[in-house]
Amino acid sequence: MKKTILFLAAFLLSAGSLAAQTSAEGVRNVIYLIGDGMGLAQVSMLKIENGYEPTAFDRAEGVALISTYSANNRVTDSAAAGTALATGGKTNNSVLGLDPEGNALHSMMERAAERDMATGLAVVTYLQHATPAAFYAHVGNRGETEAITRDMLSSGIDVMLGGGWRNLQKPCDEGGTYAEAFARRGYRVVQSLDEAEEVSSGRLLCAVDEKEFDGFAVSERGDFLPRASRKAMELLEGIAGERGGGFLLMIEGSLIDGACHGNDAERLLAEMRDFDRTVAAAMDFADRTPGTLVVVTADHETGGLTIPSGNADFTRAESGIDYRFSTKGHTGTLVPVYLYGAGADAIRGVMDNTELARRIMELLGLE
Amino acid sequence: MKKTILFLAAFLLSAGSLAAQTSAEGVRNVIYLIGDGMGLAQVSMLKIENGYEPTAFDRAEGVALISTYSANNRVTDSAAAGTALATGGKTNNSVLGLDPEGNALHSMMERAAERDMATGLAVVTYLQHATPAAFYAHVGNRGETEAITRDMLSSGIDVMLGGGWRNLQKPCDEGGTYAEAFARRGYRVVQSLDEAEEVSSGRLLCAVDEKEFDGFAVSERGDFLPRASRKAMELLEGIAGERGGGFLLMIEGSLIDGACHGNDAERLLAEMRDFDRTVAAAMDFADRTPGTLVVVTADHETGGLTIPSGNADFTRAESGIDYRFSTKGHTGTLVPVYLYGAGADAIRGVMDNTELARRIMELLGLE
Repeated sequence: MKKTILFLAAFLLSAGSLAAQTSAEGVRNVIYLIGDGMGLAQVSMLKIENGYEPTAFDRAEGVALISTYSANNRVTDSAAAGTALATGGKTNNSVLGLDPEGNALHSMMERAAERDMATGLAVVTYLQHATPAAFYAHVGNRGETEAITRDMLSSGIDVMLGGGWRNLQKPCDEGGTYAEAFARRGYRVVQSLDEAEEVSSGRLLCAVDEKEFDGFAVSERGDFLPRASRKAMELLEGIAGERGGGFLLMIEGSLIDGACHGNDAERLLAEMRDFDRTVAAAMDFADRTPGTLVVVTADHETGGLTIPSGNADFTRAESGIDYRFSTKGHTGTLVPVYLYGAGADAIRGVMDNTELARRIMELLGLE
Repeated sequence: MKKTILFLAAFLLSAGSLAAQTSAEGVRNVIYLIGDGMGLAQVSMLKIENGYEPTAFDRAEGVALISTYSANNRVTDSAAAGTALATGGKTNNSVLGLDPEGNALHSMMERAAERDMATGLAVVTYLQHATPAAFYAHVGNRGETEAITRDMLSSGIDVMLGGGWRNLQKPCDEGGTYAEAFARRGYRVVQSLDEAEEVSSGRLLCAVDEKEFDGFAVSERGDFLPRASRKAMELLEGIAGERGGGFLLMIEGSLIDGACHGNDAERLLAEMRDFDRTVAAAMDFADRTPGTLVVVTADHETGGLTIPSGNADFTRAESGIDYRFSTKGHTGTLVPVYLYGAGADAIRGVMDNTELARRIMELLGLE
């Protein structure tokens, strides 16, 4: 841990010169995609099941590797990992947006909102779940859903699509429900993606009933994530244009993790294909929008997924989905980072998840 | 597979311009380190057991990811993977230096020897084993040890350190033993690393009794691999200097694989520490020798290694070596590539193991 502190000190000392160096990259927009529980084996499985045809991940111009351990465990949960990826600071498992001593860690999303950048989230879990919440909440335990909803209201994030409708029906300190409080702040508040797709400009809060997402397979929810992500890019581009700046959008492949917790290879493959389409949509956006950096990574690996051979001497060709999991929990293996677009060269090599967050902030001038 | 052929065609068409582009990198020497069976989890385990202090892998300036499947299986063996990494061509499992139709695949080591570059191998298995043999042999089955020894004799590789003494005592077509035939070709032939270390210039064949390596733990063989690697670098630098060119050295962490086949975490950690020291020695050499590129990768992952949490909600700090394997065989997950030194920027992103080999050949002007 001492080394981490030294690195942090060295980083703070050199932040000025680093910022000067990387501002040349001309990064205006960042689309930050997080596959919850998506390790290298999960991406490898997608590639194999794609018959080795290129996936969106193969379009990456560069890759990096990040360590994922939390402040109190070699294996992180999504709260501590989300906090690291959002704020650049390590914390204990189950903590969101606070360091181990309880001090607030300021996320890149909050910094971006303060600088009047357009900001957004698109997920397939409820919007108060650990990974999205790490980008705006400050609570000692990820289970404090009401406190998280309160932080969500004050976050100033412009566009949010995901689950969480029931949480928004709870009474808000300022009177009425949270949904009403968001509407007062200029959000178009809707309960379905179809309604969201009719919105063509301005702030949007699309929160479907979270029950629809909990354990909700791709086969039932359809292409919610790529569609929600494309809508978020469109709206954020418009808002950013009005404000004369760029945008920061976090997209989570939220249910890769659940498929791996359940050791369900078939469901995992469906989730990976859904996330792959979403990554492709982000890369396509970057292709037509100069100054856009796409960063794809994971908070941790889940399930200890293995791609075994059909037999001991590897002479039998496999058929069907024949994969193996070695745990129902998370694991501590490093996870890959895929980089595409403006500034992709500025993030390379092996680093901690906190350093990845700091580099993204540098590229956006948010340090 | 069709895409692979298209890629190959595209590569052949663009090889000229690529060579022109990368020759600017000024790569004279390549040290190519292959951890047999070393996936991302194995490197992650080393990092964790190092208390997150930087390992040699963390010194990498860039990383890449490679797919490892063979021509006839999603899970490769070391022969097909070695062939891919040495020649840039895919083949079937257990084949060395031939394509699936039996045509010879010309390795980067053979090409380098033809161009009068200095060439070398340092391993901790017998020198006729699959990975080193992929750099010089052309046989339909990796078990054809005598044919492999014959190819080793005609390879013209200048410096070889590893096991294989018994194989060299076999009668050679030209009369006498293989050991004698090597001596006639100007090699200093020795049977121990202590004798090898007294050699300060020229060709060297150091082959200890292979029985000393089969299942031979680091605790017994000591620092054979880093010492042999340093000796190889020293001799190759001298030979290259005399010939006015550069060198190509392949170093294998041969027994990482065996530790994982045995699902033995403690032995694996000892092998990873040994390989880490060897990688550090190569990087140190690159630091003081401009024009040296260090490439560290693996042929495949073995064991399906997982780094689990001590309990389901990740709240217990682990102690001791608590790792999990999910197979006794190889697995099909992509493996990382670590790059350091001259030309490190030229290899990035996601690629096939055959493409990695082709890029190294381009950087050395051997395509």
